[in-house]
Amino acid sequence: MSGERKTGLVLGFSERDCSFCDKIFLMEEIISLCKRRGFIYQGSEIYGGLAGTWDYGPLGVALKRNIIREWWKFFVDSRDDMLGVDAAILMNPKTWVASGHTTTFSDPLIECEDCHGRFRADKIDLDAGCPTCGAKTWGEIRQFNMMFETNVGPVRDEDSVAYLRPETAQGIFTNFKNVVDSFYPDLPFGIAQVGKAFRNEISPRDFVFRSREFEQMEIEYFIDPTTWEENFEKLLGLTHEFLSQVGLPTTKIHELEVPDSERAHYSKRTVDIEFDFPIGREELLGIAYRTDFDLKNIERESGKKMEYRPKDGSAPFVPHVIEPSFGVERLIMAILTVAYQEDKIDGERRIALKLPEHIAPIKYLVSPLLKNKPELVTRAREIYDNLKTTGEPVMWDDSGNIGKRYRRADEIGIPHCIVVDFTTLEDDTVTVRDRDTTKQVRVKIKELTNVLND
Amino acid sequence: MSGERKTGLVLGFSERDCSFCDKIFLMEEIISLCKRRGFIYQGSEIYGGLAGTWDYGPLGVALKRNIIREWWKFFVDSRDDMLGVDAAILMNPKTWVASGHTTTFSDPLIECEDCHGRFRADKIDLDAGCPTCGAKTWGEIRQFNMMFETNVGPVRDEDSVAYLRPETAQGIFTNFKNVVDSFYPDLPFGIAQVGKAFRNEISPRDFVFRSREFEQMEIEYFIDPTTWEENFEKLLGLTHEFLSQVGLPTTKIHELEVPDSERAHYSKRTVDIEFDFPIGREELLGIAYRTDFDLKNIERESGKKMEYRPKDGSAPFVPHVIEPSFGVERLIMAILTVAYQEDKIDGERRIALKLPEHIAPIKYLVSPLLKNKPELVTRAREIYDNLKTTGEPVMWDDSGNIGKRYRRADEIGIPHCIVVDFTTLEDDTVTVRDRDTTKQVRVKIKELTNVLND
Repeated sequence: MSGERKTGLVLGFSERDCSFCDKIFLMEEIISLCKRRGFIYQGSEIYGGLAGTWDYGPLGVALKRNIIREWWKFFVDSRDDMLGVDAAILMNPKTWVASGHTTTFSDPLIECEDCHGRFRADKIDLDAGCPTCGAKTWGEIRQFNMMFETNVGPVRDEDSVAYLRPETAQGIFTNFKNVVDSFYPDLPFGIAQVGKAFRNEISPRDFVFRSREFEQMEIEYFIDPTTWEENFEKLLGLTHEFLSQVGLPTTKIHELEVPDSERAHYSKRTVDIEFDFPIGREELLGIAYRTDFDLKNIERESGKKMEYRPKDGSAPFVPHVIEPSFGVERLIMAILTVAYQEDKIDGERRIALKLPEHIAPIKYLVSPLLKNKPELVTRAREIYDNLKTTGEPVMWDDSGNIGKRYRRADEIGIPHCIVVDFTTLEDDTVTVRDRDTTKQVRVKIKELTNVLND
Repeated sequence: MSGERKTGLVLGFSERDCSFCDKIFLMEEIISLCKRRGFIYQGSEIYGGLAGTWDYGPLGVALKRNIIREWWKFFVDSRDDMLGVDAAILMNPKTWVASGHTTTFSDPLIECEDCHGRFRADKIDLDAGCPTCGAKTWGEIRQFNMMFETNVGPVRDEDSVAYLRPETAQGIFTNFKNVVDSFYPDLPFGIAQVGKAFRNEISPRDFVFRSREFEQMEIEYFIDPTTWEENFEKLLGLTHEFLSQVGLPTTKIHELEVPDSERAHYSKRTVDIEFDFPIGREELLGIAYRTDFDLKNIERESGKKMEYRPKDGSAPFVPHVIEPSFGVERLIMAILTVAYQEDKIDGERRIALKLPEHIAPIKYLVSPLLKNKPELVTRAREIYDNLKTTGEPVMWDDSGNIGKRYRRADEIGIPHCIVVDFTTLEDDTVTVRDRDTTKQVRVKIKELTNVLND
């Protein structure tokens, strides 16, 4: 037995622990819950899947939308120095020549000459032989470009090749001039984008952690280069504040200063924010000072000036850039990791998804104590309909006994369960049960929304 | 002179009218405004563009997000019979075999043997010769499949081919069983999805109307086939209600009952909702009764049952489907068409984007009457900061004279302009100017949010 999990789970279910791989075990539990309850399904599952793709079910969509909404509110809408864009996924291929992706965005690929299996050369032990057939007859290592390629227009030749963007960042840089021309914002200012990106990973793995299609939330923050240190610190601070707001504890978050030797040549500072995932400590997001690398590349490739003209009349210059880059899926995985908790109630195992209330897919469950008592059902239905008009997501459940309904609600992270019982008919109160404490209080129906908002 | 425009524009700018193509002219005006003020830019513009792609600037993102949010609220969150999904863009290619896209999703393509230009054979006059070089030496007409093709994984061969989804609908159908297994909803119920889709149009055209990358909002509404007529009417009614909520007048909306001969063979009824765009009356969205065509196709291709088991214990059956299918870009174009208005104020031309308040990208402009009076600026800044905390989008503008600020605000559709002047310092009131009437009223600062919400 593993004795103690590092994952924050309450102990006590040793029959379900694995002495070797308890971390992986938590991951499997989360994946299973996600599928069973409609958060995340394997992509194209009905046809046996498509490796590295995932589909969001009704609760997953809500969770994802809430997280993106909170991010946008925090980094864009609530600030005066941020503007949004939403660029196309298909971009002119010069974009990737300028950025260097065409030549350098690749992983080392090796092929087993026996079974023709292909692997990432840096991720397997070549001396141990082919992971599939065991043969030790390897071909040459070659660089495999991870951009998905397609052809745009009715002619299929070299000139019509385009790529699915491997990052959202370039959709921001290519619109730098457009945004400055339309808005002429004061420096420093950021341009933010949320959207899909695609990488043809040789070996997608670890649930949504490394998939071939994923969603990014990126900011390019344009600055006067003399101010880079203070702006880097500001963005780092904001990032920590945001992570805290979506419920990630500081104890699981680690700053990794990427050393000179591992940073891109143009970057003067990069901090990876790592997180204690069930699969181990891995990168959650990164903040990179990219200097004027990207805008200068665009100047070179497009022949157009990417300068900013200071409003005080001083000499124009190409701004430098600090880039906080978030992955939506990794954030979801981190949030689920923290939220997923098991305990025992009345001797029975309970799974609760202790999501922060503002990102929980459903806020309230409304239930009549008994399904076959029309007076309870009618009263509960009224409350359900009233809550629905507040715009907050509310769910109805009248099947099975009340204990089972609580378990089901806990599992999908509903913070408040409201039950109409016979006392309701006498004094217009309902019970409100708290997901985290499992405590119930009686509340007057007309005070319900006030109490729930406190 | 065109005499009278059919587009709802107030007349009086004859020097800017075209006697032949006034409708196209309005389109050009809207496109120009979209670019100038940061709504919509040409995709990859800095590199000369990528035909059929468009990027959204800061105001365009906000407008698009608002429209999608309203759609989701109306069709999903506020209803008990709708669930959301968000499937991957890359799907197992069997999806498109089952749906028929692999074999039939094509347009007729013809090539000029002289200049090798390629055209949609059904969109040009072949007898008139090549639109590019005038030659009349045409090749054979062939069917050109509009799905974008790519390869997934490190091996590039027939087995690794995948497509960018040409519609979001199949991402719903393929998740039908997942959603039923997780939620077991009562019939009828709908599954909704918002997301990107891609079609390799031979000739993308008309701004965002027909582009190669676009966003859909689709619902598959699963029903007992005996109830199809009433459910069709219900969804048609909801659709009209939604269009009205985003400000489209009924006079510009036309129902087209698609006749038997033009409907897909499996569809028993299809209604196209057409709209009077500046480019003419064109399809805005469609509602199609697709019978059990899609789920039966999936059964055949996957070998898995797509049945629904009624809760009353009666025999399981494959549900039928009614599909309302919206295009986000077409909706944006329709909304802009209606909102874009020109009139004269004090003898000067004014452009106003009369967007409904709940979808306007910016709700309030806050301005000090004079920029160089610190006491006005400070007071205005306080109001700005206070409004910002409400979460409503607010903009600051202190450049140029107040008349120019109003013009700029009108052009991007800001409903309310709040100005701090010298009277403010005396009696704590500000002027609030209405975009549509251009009328100003004085309002007590502490009553501002109440008055604005009324």
